Amino acid sequence: MHKPGPFHACDMPDAGRPLRALALVASLKHKPETSNTEELAGRVLHHLSGHGITEQETIRLVDLDIKPGLGGDMGDGDEWPQVAERIRAADIVLFCTPIWWGTVDSVMQRAIERMDSLHEEYRQTGVSPLYNKVAGVVITGSEDGAQHTNATLLSTLQFMGFTIPPECCTYWVGTVGDDPKDDARKRRESKAAETMAKHTARNLAYYARLLAAHPMELKPSSPG
Amino acid sequence: MHKPGPFHACDMPDAGRPLRALALVASLKHKPETSNTEELAGRVLHHLSGHGITEQETIRLVDLDIKPGLGGDMGDGDEWPQVAERIRAADIVLFCTPIWWGTVDSVMQRAIERMDSLHEEYRQTGVSPLYNKVAGVVITGSEDGAQHTNATLLSTLQFMGFTIPPECCTYWVGTVGDDPKDDARKRRESKAAETMAKHTARNLAYYARLLAAHPMELKPSSPG
Amino acid sequence: MHKPGPFHACDMPDAGRPLRALALVASLKHKPETSNTEELAGRVLHHLSGHGITEQETIRLVDLDIKPGLGGDMGDGDEWPQVAERIRAADIVLFCTPIWWGTVDSVMQRAIERMDSLHEEYRQTGVSPLYNKVAGVVITGSEDGAQHTNATLLSTLQFMGFTIPPECCTYWVGTVGDDPKDDARKRRESKAAETMAKHTARNLAYYARLLAAHPMELKPSSPG
Amino acid sequence: MHKPGPFHACDMPDAGRPLRALALVASLKHKPETSNTEELAGRVLHHLSGHGITEQETIRLVDLDIKPGLGGDMGDGDEWPQVAERIRAADIVLFCTPIWWGTVDSVMQRAIERMDSLHEEYRQTGVSPLYNKVAGVVITGSEDGAQHTNATLLSTLQFMGFTIPPECCTYWVGTVGDDPKDDARKRRESKAAETMAKHTARNLAYYARLLAAHPMELKPSSPG
Repeated sequence: MHKPGPFHACDMPDAGRPLRALALVASLKHKPETSNTEELAGRVLHHLSGHGITEQETIRLVDLDIKPGLGGDMGDGDEWPQVAERIRAADIVLFCTPIWWGTVDSVMQRAIERMDSLHEEYRQTGVSPLYNKVAGVVITGSEDGAQHTNATLLSTLQFMGFTIPPECCTYWVGTVGDDPKDDARKRRESKAAETMAKHTARNLAYYARLLAAHPMELKPSSPG
Repeated sequence: MHKPGPFHACDMPDAGRPLRALALVASLKHKPETSNTEELAGRVLHHLSGHGITEQETIRLVDLDIKPGLGGDMGDGDEWPQVAERIRAADIVLFCTPIWWGTVDSVMQRAIERMDSLHEEYRQTGVSPLYNKVAGVVITGSEDGAQHTNATLLSTLQFMGFTIPPECCTYWVGTVGDDPKDDARKRRESKAAETMAKHTARNLAYYARLLAAHPMELKPSSPG
Repeated sequence: MHKPGPFHACDMPDAGRPLRALALVASLKHKPETSNTEELAGRVLHHLSGHGITEQETIRLVDLDIKPGLGGDMGDGDEWPQVAERIRAADIVLFCTPIWWGTVDSVMQRAIERMDSLHEEYRQTGVSPLYNKVAGVVITGSEDGAQHTNATLLSTLQFMGFTIPPECCTYWVGTVGDDPKDDARKRRESKAAETMAKHTARNLAYYARLLAAHPMELKPSSPG
Repeated sequence: MHKPGPFHACDMPDAGRPLRALALVASLKHKPETSNTEELAGRVLHHLSGHGITEQETIRLVDLDIKPGLGGDMGDGDEWPQVAERIRAADIVLFCTPIWWGTVDSVMQRAIERMDSLHEEYRQTGVSPLYNKVAGVVITGSEDGAQHTNATLLSTLQFMGFTIPPECCTYWVGTVGDDPKDDARKRRESKAAETMAKHTARNLAYYARLLAAHPMELKPSSPG
């Protein structure tokens, strides 16, 4: 049974350069409507600032026109290429999704599908553009499904080349049958969620700094 | 779509000490019967040797009497405590399971449940005995289920405190309707599985070495 | 381990009226591009015809503008309402999805999310518009993930009110590392997939006929 | 989002014979220790009695010596054969499991593995001993994981030959970070869980009665 333990600090490695965090938020709601998921992601970003990761960016994916398909640019106004460019520039990527029927929503799944073009680049060259980046996960739901949602994301992200630090998932879920109107208040009051946010931020910062100082450098023996 | 890319070498960090790898094999078959899963785990261990991780141990879990329950020692001849002790001593732990009906088998699930006592220790003290260890996954099946099995394991392992390197899962699955008698041969001939084994071993070695040199050291502000 | 057994016929209940089958196809590819998933769905529909279910309709979801959100009509040209109307009119609904990274794709997940409005109608009135309908699943993938994809769909569909007959899932998946160019040919040659299509069609027909003859009729004790 | 609606009665088909319900309870705790899962299963059984299904049996699986393996009888005192015999005799089988780390526990997974011998019988003869039986699911957990646990079970059960009625899963899960000591009280007070138990029982009874009156009778065209 998952039980987040008490929070403790640790010394941080010296990254030798400023690090960038990117939060991809897959709320079904357009801005400026409030997103539970974005608010919880904000707690992780807040604590990342405390660990010196102050270059931060949040993208509300539903506000972009991200086409279905697997290419890097599906044309016709496809706005995925600008997301891909932000992923390439980031050291830490937070994948933030609401739960719908026990799993990632359609907006996050679309982003995962479109990341296929980055994975394909790795396939061709042998060097993944996602190596030496760390991934974290933020999940909210009216009830049940956080661990399965997290599992589905983590397996994909590690196959793609991300590093998964320990305790890098922060979630809040409500109780079946409860009125979802109270979700935001209950989430904000959740000590477990806040503890998870602290763990997630500390561990993302530690591993991103460590990898910035000691990146894994693959040596293609011949042109891709 | 998961497609393992070509293998490339990388320079390895200096761990400063010898590292230990432990493979927990959850085959349903007792020794000396051959286990597909153990054979595939052997490929990862072989490549780990090539990266200087030569202290290796494999435990066939089904040969031990591991009682159901959540405590550290369920009594009555429970042999879990000796497994827990080997996990504590390891830097790299490979979780190796066959797929039965799309998920981890009962032997691996039993081990996961019994690791709850290590997680509980973390809950009490704030310092997880599983931090600074890296986890990898090895999966075989007559058909389908590797990614879900991997997902279920990785989510649990990161919540428990393990570090998950990129591309740290090696699997082979057959085709629905094919005769399982041919599984072993087809698995041995699979180039994709061998490439995954190389990636898994290289990445487990890299991250275990890096964490040995730069362990995350948590500072409890007060006694647990 | 899932192993489809030999096919046998059975006598069919008399439905007393013609029945309608609807295939919701969630390919990422627009028409007229060929969809592996739609082709395999076509095998199930073919066999449904043999069981007298000749009123059939296939919708390629990606060709419609289905907005993100949870309402029945999200406005701005939202084309979900016409899909919902076809679901209401059907006795059998086939949920047909490719696998991307081990799970349903974004197009199918979008449809599941939008079906929330039908589920909400049930919540308000106590009578689900999805009771007395049977659901089947068709899945294709370049490799691995059919059982997890099926599981995620079936759990949601039964909570929504669909009836799940035995062996109502038909899938084909390739082998990791193989060239996806050969997928279509190998799928068409798969005896296991064809047997699953026969089982799926027979069982969908049997249960849809049985429920048409003996529908579960809920009696709200007071206005919903 | 899953939201159980208000309960309504329905007329029941005449089965023409008494029906039997079997609850397989996969608690990790031995009798006479109280099992949350068994208590919740008891609510479903209670309502099944109200629908005339009074022949009921509950097996606490952990109290039996169920060997690992895939055969019908693994020897050496294996007690699976008596469970298999009870499954064959039942019209309704309730699969009741606690959640451990987001999925079915090792005791339930063991039972699923051992049911492989029944599935193998189907493979050989073309007639599954599990056709015309209906399956339900009961799940409890200290937090999160019900829908994934349900999904994993339902997919397997329909491939094996069980019929899955609508809304045939009853669950209760607590909130991450809460003290598990309060689980039993909170579960007993859960209106959502009680509503799910009523739905589950009504629907299991309806479909079991319907199938008893109109069993699907497969006609092998030739021996085995």
